[in-house]
Amino acid sequence: MIILGIDPGLSLTGWGVVEACSRDKISLIEYGCVKTMPAFSLIERLQKIHLELQFIISKYRPEAVAVEELFFFKTSKSITYVGQSRGAILLTVSMSNIALFEYNPKVVKLALTGYGSADKYQMQHMVKTFLKLKKVPKPDDAADALAMAICHVNTIRWG
Amino acid sequence: MIILGIDPGLSLTGWGVVEACSRDKISLIEYGCVKTMPAFSLIERLQKIHLELQFIISKYRPEAVAVEELFFFKTSKSITYVGQSRGAILLTVSMSNIALFEYNPKVVKLALTGYGSADKYQMQHMVKTFLKLKKVPKPDDAADALAMAICHVNTIRWG
Repeated sequence: MIILGIDPGLSLTGWGVVEACSRDKISLIEYGCVKTMPAFSLIERLQKIHLELQFIISKYRPEAVAVEELFFFKTSKSITYVGQSRGAILLTVSMSNIALFEYNPKVVKLALTGYGSADKYQMQHMVKTFLKLKKVPKPDDAADALAMAICHVNTIRWG
Repeated sequence: MIILGIDPGLSLTGWGVVEACSRDKISLIEYGCVKTMPAFSLIERLQKIHLELQFIISKYRPEAVAVEELFFFKTSKSITYVGQSRGAILLTVSMSNIALFEYNPKVVKLALTGYGSADKYQMQHMVKTFLKLKKVPKPDDAADALAMAICHVNTIRWG
């Protein structure tokens, strides 16, 4: 099963693709970031995120997409931009008819480390361990997206 | 020139279409609301907004779309939902290759009433006056969307 994890943002949207045969057998396929520059208009930035995600979806053909839920404690301005990016991302996924799953950051932390308040470094260490990598994936947004995909693997039922 | 005004929301997205020959000659074509129910998932609600707006755009073929900018003083939770809806709306407009204009609520109030802190009733009265209607358009979200379209007519240069 191929899973695409997404960490929504306006400047940086992290994405990560993993393949899983079971809860313990997860391997990395690819990861990266969609970058958009503040010099462009909001609509142009959303369009870039849409087009790049469409390309990623058509290239890796995931069976499921896992997207991070929004934090409420971020500043209003930050929430506004991330929220608009997330809306465009959800619409893009819906156009591909792929099952979408939303995970709360606490649930993701719990699934990866067994501890709902794990910090960024503990999370990144677990992403590296789960995917048997030599280094932590960079930037952080891509590691967060991979954490999202791993969380989905750990959450679904395996027959 | 046909203009579509949009007041983004998740439960209710107001829309209004006007035709303008000059700053003083504006007439109403149609208005309404896209309603989505909380019983549906966020992705289904965004998809409904997308499909209904696509239908409205293909039916009225506006040359410009005017969308309200987000307030920052709304509660985080409200901003989160309206933001995601707005992201899906902007992406929908961008797919139709129509020029998009964003207006701050204060600018809209100023354009319609000459007063940046006008209240809801003053605004609705001016929408009714500009469009020579007998009654204020309902619901409020549709009247706000028409105010957006009228603001655009008042803002652009007429040769």
